[in-house]
Amino acid sequence: MRSPVPPRVLAAELGTMPAGERVVLRGHVHRRRELSTVTFVVLRDRSGLAQIVVRPDEMAAGDIPPEETPVEVSGTAIENPQAPGGVEVVGAEIIALSDPARTPPVELWRPSLSTGLPTLLDHAPVTWRHLAQRAKWQLTAASLRGFRETLDRAGFVEVHTPKIVETVAESGADVFEVDYFGRPAFLAQSPQFYKQQLVGVFERVYEVGPVFRAEPHDTVRHLAEYVSLDVELGFIDDHRDVLAVLREVLSGMVEAVAEHAEEALGRLGVRLPVIPADIPVIHFRDALARVGAPADEPDLAPEHERELGRWARAELGSDVLAVEGYPMRKRPFYTHPQPDDPRWSNSFDLLFRGMELVTGGQRLHRHGDYVAAIEARGEAADAYASYLPTFSAGMPPHGGFAIGLERWVGRLIEATNIREATLFPRDLHRLAP
Amino acid sequence: MRSPVPPRVLAAELGTMPAGERVVLRGHVHRRRELSTVTFVVLRDRSGLAQIVVRPDEMAAGDIPPEETPVEVSGTAIENPQAPGGVEVVGAEIIALSDPARTPPVELWRPSLSTGLPTLLDHAPVTWRHLAQRAKWQLTAASLRGFRETLDRAGFVEVHTPKIVETVAESGADVFEVDYFGRPAFLAQSPQFYKQQLVGVFERVYEVGPVFRAEPHDTVRHLAEYVSLDVELGFIDDHRDVLAVLREVLSGMVEAVAEHAEEALGRLGVRLPVIPADIPVIHFRDALARVGAPADEPDLAPEHERELGRWARAELGSDVLAVEGYPMRKRPFYTHPQPDDPRWSNSFDLLFRGMELVTGGQRLHRHGDYVAAIEARGEAADAYASYLPTFSAGMPPHGGFAIGLERWVGRLIEATNIREATLFPRDLHRLAP
Repeated sequence: MRSPVPPRVLAAELGTMPAGERVVLRGHVHRRRELSTVTFVVLRDRSGLAQIVVRPDEMAAGDIPPEETPVEVSGTAIENPQAPGGVEVVGAEIIALSDPARTPPVELWRPSLSTGLPTLLDHAPVTWRHLAQRAKWQLTAASLRGFRETLDRAGFVEVHTPKIVETVAESGADVFEVDYFGRPAFLAQSPQFYKQQLVGVFERVYEVGPVFRAEPHDTVRHLAEYVSLDVELGFIDDHRDVLAVLREVLSGMVEAVAEHAEEALGRLGVRLPVIPADIPVIHFRDALARVGAPADEPDLAPEHERELGRWARAELGSDVLAVEGYPMRKRPFYTHPQPDDPRWSNSFDLLFRGMELVTGGQRLHRHGDYVAAIEARGEAADAYASYLPTFSAGMPPHGGFAIGLERWVGRLIEATNIREATLFPRDLHRLAP
Repeated sequence: MRSPVPPRVLAAELGTMPAGERVVLRGHVHRRRELSTVTFVVLRDRSGLAQIVVRPDEMAAGDIPPEETPVEVSGTAIENPQAPGGVEVVGAEIIALSDPARTPPVELWRPSLSTGLPTLLDHAPVTWRHLAQRAKWQLTAASLRGFRETLDRAGFVEVHTPKIVETVAESGADVFEVDYFGRPAFLAQSPQFYKQQLVGVFERVYEVGPVFRAEPHDTVRHLAEYVSLDVELGFIDDHRDVLAVLREVLSGMVEAVAEHAEEALGRLGVRLPVIPADIPVIHFRDALARVGAPADEPDLAPEHERELGRWARAELGSDVLAVEGYPMRKRPFYTHPQPDDPRWSNSFDLLFRGMELVTGGQRLHRHGDYVAAIEARGEAADAYASYLPTFSAGMPPHGGFAIGLERWVGRLIEATNIREATLFPRDLHRLAP
């Protein structure tokens, strides 16, 4: 039997209630502020905040549950231009829905959070309750929605591929080993091999899932486990077709954030990036020249990326810049060379506000090219026995990219540490919470 | 420079082309059939099949690339009521986009697939190309879409939680161990602890991600790695509120399959399940009585589940049946007891066509209840040091459920083995492809 109470109203809906309406709210006590004549209780639910005014003759201030306690509030909605949404609740009965909450490790009701990162991370299940923290993840969730909706519309199929694997896709060093029923196995560093093979099935695929990198370094931009947004598509001409899909995806993510996380954007003061209709492209060779680096540098240093980011913003009006043609010797063996000069590759990095966000490109698609590329690196093709046969089975020219989810949101909120954009980060030192 | 060819047309769009239109198609040679006067080439792309007619004076039959080779076809669309979509392509030029494909391990062009499961799995990257195989996963992708869209509409937030964990959520036996920078860690058997804690943050959360069970048995219904669709919500009255959300989710999944995978449904002859507006519920105690099992049985045997499934279908007109009240001693420590009789629990299993598909229920939400429950099982609360503090921090009454993705699709297609609904299954014996 349910009690005959009115249905629950969300805090954000309170402003639409007619004055005098009986309402029931549920949420956490966000703030309890005792004045001489009344106590203000601010309730926090998934939608926002609501103000409840309690007079001493209704409920003694000391009987109001402490902050963070989940409660049910029944009362009357009345207009008050000073209250959030212009409506507050009076004549309220407040019932605790659990034991009184212990004082949290940080003051969750303060508008901004001045706590250091270690405290935030150590107490993550509680500190994520802070509205500014919660807003960060709301950007993440909206971004995921935009990612998928864009690809669904473009005929991509969502796939899920194994995370326990026999063969390592990238270099062998940074990999976690798993005891698989007594056999050694590994945690997938990427769905690379699977997404390529599935291009032969679905032509266009994407996957959102965890990837694992046993990063032995402690940096502000690496995690041992993160969420990778992987895309792969077939029947391309070259990597520029991949970049065109990436452009649509990023644009879709930005639009979804604007549509579904407007409040979070405002709270965090996020400046949404400009994604031009055509992402500007610079060749790696020209990028080196532009930043004054020696022509034989094999990669861009972080300060080079930052400088290119500033240039793209100032000169091209773009928050994103694609650098194409990275030297083949620095790219994985499955990378397709640049047809007119095989020192360079048909691959790219996308810099977002001067930091690498995406790696993508065209892959090899002929079996013979794979065998040659693997052997040229001094490896045995046998090590890829469950991967290579697909390339004898008729694989179209294809390519794809991967976006690091936490890195995307980290750049969006201009965080200094990627852990700020991760619910429960995993790194060299951190395995809990 | 792109060559000035007309934009690519998908096979499924061919029927909308005006007769006489020049078209370019890209796809795999699905079937090459040489008759005395012409050769029919059937092209397969992500959208379906297209027929190309090649006269010997246009191209020698022997020059047409073998089946599975990716090709580009340029030709003229003409009406032919016998062709798929009523249109075929004549006067075609066929260019191979890769080396000639090796003969696949199964005849992918045959309408049905009579190959045994081991061959299908051993050659999964190629056998999934078969239209009947591909259709199965199209049901999966559409189901995921329906799952998320339903929850997004209902104010749920998508989360991603760590798969490398310090503490095991379920029993300690069936867990994979990982070498985490020299420390022992585990692969998460479920996001249970995280999704509960995040109810304190977002109130309503869901996660789609891999879970890992070191199942030491080789059965047709278990995998060592599978995709779990996890949902958790706060401010509930009891498990019936959880069941109501599950009902919406299942209904949304069925609708999305009908909307986005209509062709796949037809190809597989799938009968979509009936999800009633209120899922029928039977108490565990009454379920035992109905199947004639002893009243002290702690669980339902598979034959009991099948019998209950038949009863629900025949008597209640429902493909789903919730069994609530499972004995507390058979449920995890975080399960909320039935308030009026703590031998039973506020939890349920959902049977879908007579097989367990979902486990869900209300969880404990008070810290003291957790400590008591853990100690009653002879465990030390210390083992849950990164989990339990959240329950002192004010947690609302909450609950949730988890749907096994492969099990859902397996039941939908009435597969006899869950591996039929898994792209690249992982089990006691299988770690590749």
